[in-house]
Amino acid sequence: MGLIVQKFGGTSVADSEKIKNVANAVIKEKLNGNDVVVVVSAMGHTTDNLIKLSKEITHHPQEREMDMLMSTGELISMSLLAMAINEKGYKAISLNGRQAGIQTENCHMCARIVNIDTKRIKECLNNGYIVVVAGFQGYCDNNEITTLGRGGSDTTAVALAGALKAQRCDIYSDVEGVYTTDPRVVQTAQKLKTISYEEMLELARVGANVLHPRSVETAKLYQIPMRVRSAFKLDDLGTLIIGVENMELNKPVTGLASDSSQIRIVICDVEDSPGNAAKLFDLLAGKNISVDMIIQSYARNMKKTNDIAFTISIDDYEKFNATKDEIMHIIKASNIFVDEDIVKVSIVGAGMIDRPGIAAKMFNTLAQEDINIKMISTSEIKISCLIEKDCAQKATKALAKAFELDGAKVADVKGDLPVL
Amino acid sequence: MGLIVQKFGGTSVADSEKIKNVANAVIKEKLNGNDVVVVVSAMGHTTDNLIKLSKEITHHPQEREMDMLMSTGELISMSLLAMAINEKGYKAISLNGRQAGIQTENCHMCARIVNIDTKRIKECLNNGYIVVVAGFQGYCDNNEITTLGRGGSDTTAVALAGALKAQRCDIYSDVEGVYTTDPRVVQTAQKLKTISYEEMLELARVGANVLHPRSVETAKLYQIPMRVRSAFKLDDLGTLIIGVENMELNKPVTGLASDSSQIRIVICDVEDSPGNAAKLFDLLAGKNISVDMIIQSYARNMKKTNDIAFTISIDDYEKFNATKDEIMHIIKASNIFVDEDIVKVSIVGAGMIDRPGIAAKMFNTLAQEDINIKMISTSEIKISCLIEKDCAQKATKALAKAFELDGAKVADVKGDLPVL
Repeated sequence: MGLIVQKFGGTSVADSEKIKNVANAVIKEKLNGNDVVVVVSAMGHTTDNLIKLSKEITHHPQEREMDMLMSTGELISMSLLAMAINEKGYKAISLNGRQAGIQTENCHMCARIVNIDTKRIKECLNNGYIVVVAGFQGYCDNNEITTLGRGGSDTTAVALAGALKAQRCDIYSDVEGVYTTDPRVVQTAQKLKTISYEEMLELARVGANVLHPRSVETAKLYQIPMRVRSAFKLDDLGTLIIGVENMELNKPVTGLASDSSQIRIVICDVEDSPGNAAKLFDLLAGKNISVDMIIQSYARNMKKTNDIAFTISIDDYEKFNATKDEIMHIIKASNIFVDEDIVKVSIVGAGMIDRPGIAAKMFNTLAQEDINIKMISTSEIKISCLIEKDCAQKATKALAKAFELDGAKVADVKGDLPVL
Repeated sequence: MGLIVQKFGGTSVADSEKIKNVANAVIKEKLNGNDVVVVVSAMGHTTDNLIKLSKEITHHPQEREMDMLMSTGELISMSLLAMAINEKGYKAISLNGRQAGIQTENCHMCARIVNIDTKRIKECLNNGYIVVVAGFQGYCDNNEITTLGRGGSDTTAVALAGALKAQRCDIYSDVEGVYTTDPRVVQTAQKLKTISYEEMLELARVGANVLHPRSVETAKLYQIPMRVRSAFKLDDLGTLIIGVENMELNKPVTGLASDSSQIRIVICDVEDSPGNAAKLFDLLAGKNISVDMIIQSYARNMKKTNDIAFTISIDDYEKFNATKDEIMHIIKASNIFVDEDIVKVSIVGAGMIDRPGIAAKMFNTLAQEDINIKMISTSEIKISCLIEKDCAQKATKALAKAFELDGAKVADVKGDLPVL
């Protein structure tokens, strides 16, 4: 039949028993008559332990050496999985990033894949092997080892699926699929049978930790259907992520997520002269600080100055702090104010494109709960509101109810998709 | 000045503090004005833990997959050491077997190095880097990963020293040098200042666990002086291993070692026909069972049959047992008898070549202690006796006294060797 790429996350391969379980899942797909390529993450806490070791040595490791170190985790899990599959009587071979032909840019710790030479993988498949590939890593010039950064193993899997023209890419983890909202907060949250790439992208960007946006972008680019499913419930098909054109849009809002990993920065009394905002964000980009939401208030005072507010990741706070004086100097602000008491709540849905009133409904819902909105940002298929941390649960529950994400009917595929 | 290759064993890099200590030892050599290439083993019990993991999965792993798995240990220690050296303000870069140009035969788990392409290492050295190389591993055709088997990291170090025409190869471990005999048994055992390759080879072969014979053979081949020294006493020069032509041979016996890792097999009543012994040892070689000592008794009975006795490693006992029936069938023996109660005691010394009576003195010494000798084997510079396990300590003490290895003067270098 076809070719399926499977990816198993760290919790799915956390110990030898779990690796044997994964071997069963792989063999099950092989017995369906498919060729199978399996991408694995490092076992359980391996990556954390390696980071801990490096921190005992230095707080300023060379990125190249970190890649050398971090790339070992997947080599361990992939060889053990190949052994486990062989032990069960099926031919398997493990390939590291170099052997799997995963070529990246010449950069470390967040390299992008530039090319996949699939020759060796195809040879192995033609010889009847199940091919196990180390996730998260590749190589660049001079046989240097690179890693792909966050969401790296998912990206490896989807990129391989694209290069090999796979029929589907299955992402196995400890979650059972994509939910309308966080099931830990809203117990009646529904698992989606299908969701579009675009919606999944927005959900991933606003804090749903199921998939990294990068892998979804890649899947969308190659139009590879993805399944998010549980490694521990092999009969559950999870959630299928496909092109929006294959979906019936019966509801404006598909999903709801909250993200408490950001902080808000307010820069007060910035001189209202052309190019001042550009200077600020150029400076931040130069320091590799990603900015998410941005609001510039209208110059409302005699001095003709603006306030500029924006959000950044807590992880970048240290870098930002080191840049503070430079910012004050360059854009001549009077003060910089940091607000850590925020959470971003977002609703996402491809169906909101043609339906007015969704934003108003969101603001009203929050107002009825006495929740103050600090900032707002929107895209075609997403609305995000920054609110106080304490209100996150209350907001999520109210919005889930208002947009029928708590047990109501959910988006479904249009017609039959027999090949998936 | 010159180029020094250093090798640090697993206990020397067992945790982050010890890795920082190794960084100091490396920098100390760099500050002497030398270029430095460092070879590292895997941290502490890493290798054992990886083997344990694989055994939880299967008792019959593919050798290729074992190499994938086992080669990760050195990648971790080498990147951490490079970070530690960098942290102390010196430029360091880590290279895996592929990057270091260590090409091996196309075979797994005990590959021999066939070529070292030193281009990249030399480039790094020319750019002022301390080069940290993963021990124990290389690559072969198709970018396959191979490992070198027992004593692999020592072999990597010495082979690199040969290929780079290094001035010296220093093997750092938790022992302070080569002793005349085991200091745990004979407290007055002396550390040797120098020993010849030939003597070290014999000592290594008969059970002194300081160095693997393979690395000594390689050092002898390239005439690379080696130092065995402690990673925890950097001011102690340990033992220098050099060509016999540089040494004053003032004593016939340099060292004494015992090895309790063997078992004795006696095959009874083997038909005394030509080629029967050859058949037996061909069969064992075909099963990859290494034979050490061999004795064939003279046909002394009416039936014209011989007894053949030999020793093998305990590790190979399982393999031997599986071959037993085949042996009985092929060489038509009446019985196979296994003796586990043996230990091999050996004396080694290049000085015994021209001095008669050394063997007689050894046998007399054992006889005076009422120790029965089960088998004897000799080489030009070594005599080994197989005795009962219980007698090992008593024999070692008596022989150390008889051959003046317990505190007497030891062999020393002839004249000055200022470059070492």
